[in-house]
Amino acid sequence: MKARVEITLKPGVLDPQGQAIGHALAGLGFAGVDNVRQGKLIELDLPESDPAKARAQVDEMCRTLLANPVIERYAIQLAEA
Amino acid sequence: MKARVEITLKPGVLDPQGQAIGHALAGLGFAGVDNVRQGKLIELDLPESDPAKARAQVDEMCRTLLANPVIERYAIQLAEA
Repeated sequence: MKARVEITLKPGVLDPQGQAIGHALAGLGFAGVDNVRQGKLIELDLPESDPAKARAQVDEMCRTLLANPVIERYAIQLAEA
Repeated sequence: MKARVEITLKPGVLDPQGQAIGHALAGLGFAGVDNVRQGKLIELDLPESDPAKARAQVDEMCRTLLANPVIERYAIQLAEA
């Protein structure tokens, strides 16, 4: 099945990349844009077809590689391949 | 209002970052994971409250700064602040 993981910084964690985007947007004339935050989006195909097992696998992937659970949170969405 | 932009590589565009994640997952013992693709997720607050105008503004941001329309596609979601 297909998995989709959204990884975003936890609220309160400083996001210098988001701030840089905000400044660049202001420089281009987009006034008043605020709270820019950048996250990651990871899509992958899994051989596992059982949704519960697939979710557990992707959760393990997030904890060991994809996300840094200290400063990031992640959301997993599954879809039939 | 709040905007959320998902930026992903167009199909067919090589994704070395996604491939690296795929190899790292295989090295960690996650067998059979395939088609790993990494994209970006950008969230921001806009002063504009009219949805049509807000969407046009964010679309302009994507074309001028956030995405590379040659190799990336983007999807915009809006929500009330």
